[in-house]
Amino acid sequence: MTQGTRTTQGSVVGVGLGPGSQDLMSVRADRLIRQATHIAYFRKKGRKGHARSIVEGLLAPDVIELPMEYPVTTEIPVDDPRYNALLSSFYEQSVAQLIEMANAGCDVVVLCEGDPFFYGSFMHLYTRLLNQVSVSVVPGITGMSAAWTATGQPITWGDDILTVLMATLPEQALAERIAQTDALVVMKIGRNLNKLRRALVTAGREHQAWLIEYAAMAQQRVLPLSDLDPLAEGTENVPYFSIVLIHGNGRRP
Amino acid sequence: MTQGTRTTQGSVVGVGLGPGSQDLMSVRADRLIRQATHIAYFRKKGRKGHARSIVEGLLAPDVIELPMEYPVTTEIPVDDPRYNALLSSFYEQSVAQLIEMANAGCDVVVLCEGDPFFYGSFMHLYTRLLNQVSVSVVPGITGMSAAWTATGQPITWGDDILTVLMATLPEQALAERIAQTDALVVMKIGRNLNKLRRALVTAGREHQAWLIEYAAMAQQRVLPLSDLDPLAEGTENVPYFSIVLIHGNGRRP
Repeated sequence: MTQGTRTTQGSVVGVGLGPGSQDLMSVRADRLIRQATHIAYFRKKGRKGHARSIVEGLLAPDVIELPMEYPVTTEIPVDDPRYNALLSSFYEQSVAQLIEMANAGCDVVVLCEGDPFFYGSFMHLYTRLLNQVSVSVVPGITGMSAAWTATGQPITWGDDILTVLMATLPEQALAERIAQTDALVVMKIGRNLNKLRRALVTAGREHQAWLIEYAAMAQQRVLPLSDLDPLAEGTENVPYFSIVLIHGNGRRP
Repeated sequence: MTQGTRTTQGSVVGVGLGPGSQDLMSVRADRLIRQATHIAYFRKKGRKGHARSIVEGLLAPDVIELPMEYPVTTEIPVDDPRYNALLSSFYEQSVAQLIEMANAGCDVVVLCEGDPFFYGSFMHLYTRLLNQVSVSVVPGITGMSAAWTATGQPITWGDDILTVLMATLPEQALAERIAQTDALVVMKIGRNLNKLRRALVTAGREHQAWLIEYAAMAQQRVLPLSDLDPLAEGTENVPYFSIVLIHGNGRRP
């Protein structure tokens, strides 16, 4: 036991960056990112990475960066067994790199869009890091909060029920849930937009829905979903950062 | 038209303070609050006010404060017509005070716990201020984000459906919704705790539920709800800042 020569293990912290505007990060996130000696972030191969872009200008000049590049994003369907196998091995490899940094005594800040525990990618690292290294999370403002703020209307009043759905769900499930809720948030829209629009029609709520693209970012766009031209089947014309929502209309004195 | 002698009207901004820890405010909120010349906030009569407590130490020494004191909180049931009438007239009066400040050329920061458009009280002022004065909102980290972060477990994975319920709903509605969702958040618990626990039992999910009190605050407490002693009917032993949640368990590579 050569206690004296041991390095104290560093930690990993998943930091929520919020919806994408630098000043919508928390004060804690801002401080951790400015002071970071090591940062890590997901990105698509060949891209700068959206999380990395959000912190542009905040980082120390000598910060060490670990980009974690997705092996797949949308090329393989999520129900293909190869999708899970590829992603799982990618997460294992990323975790090994983070633990190596921590074992060298470094604290690593992992940049996470939105709120890390709310449909975030960091969760896949987090559960693998537990019991191996000190790991924690800083919550962030969600993309959906930025989206409803952008509409200039409250999302929920009084006893309103809010349902959050991923547009990747089957059309029938979407339609049933949309019909049953007061307030609605739908994420992961992309190539599921036509399916989502049909589900909204089935639920009789297509004229209540708003589309918000790039909430809180420079390219922000807010419009009633019915103002968007219907799409040819199979096309995709909304960006990844799109949210559809329906405002609740509950009790209000 | 004595244009030359007119004062430019000020603005009102509802600023989300997040869950209650000062450094979980956004950088924008922090800046607006430090620079504020006029602040307003709700509080219960005779109390300092939770929103006001969160910003302690950040305010300019000569800031002008407008506490807006609730005429009722829990003394009158929400379905009593007097409740609505009292609250409505209180909101009208508060709006008149805010407009008076704005008409005198002052910008007013309204302190809002959590995220203003997510079950917040500011919405009742916001809808009345629209078209009378320039009014905007800064989103914040929700109390529920702080709550699931406090449990150290992600709330939603993959295609999980998240349902947000107020414990003020009828027991049968609670039980049905709890049975049908993947992930669950329940707010406004207080004296509805026993009803909520019965609904969780009916839904067969009482052993999956977590109770989080004062998430992200000094008094934070996290425990499986089943570790809390059953209560005598009618008693209330969880604080206002309590959230019950069930984690989703969806697809994960």
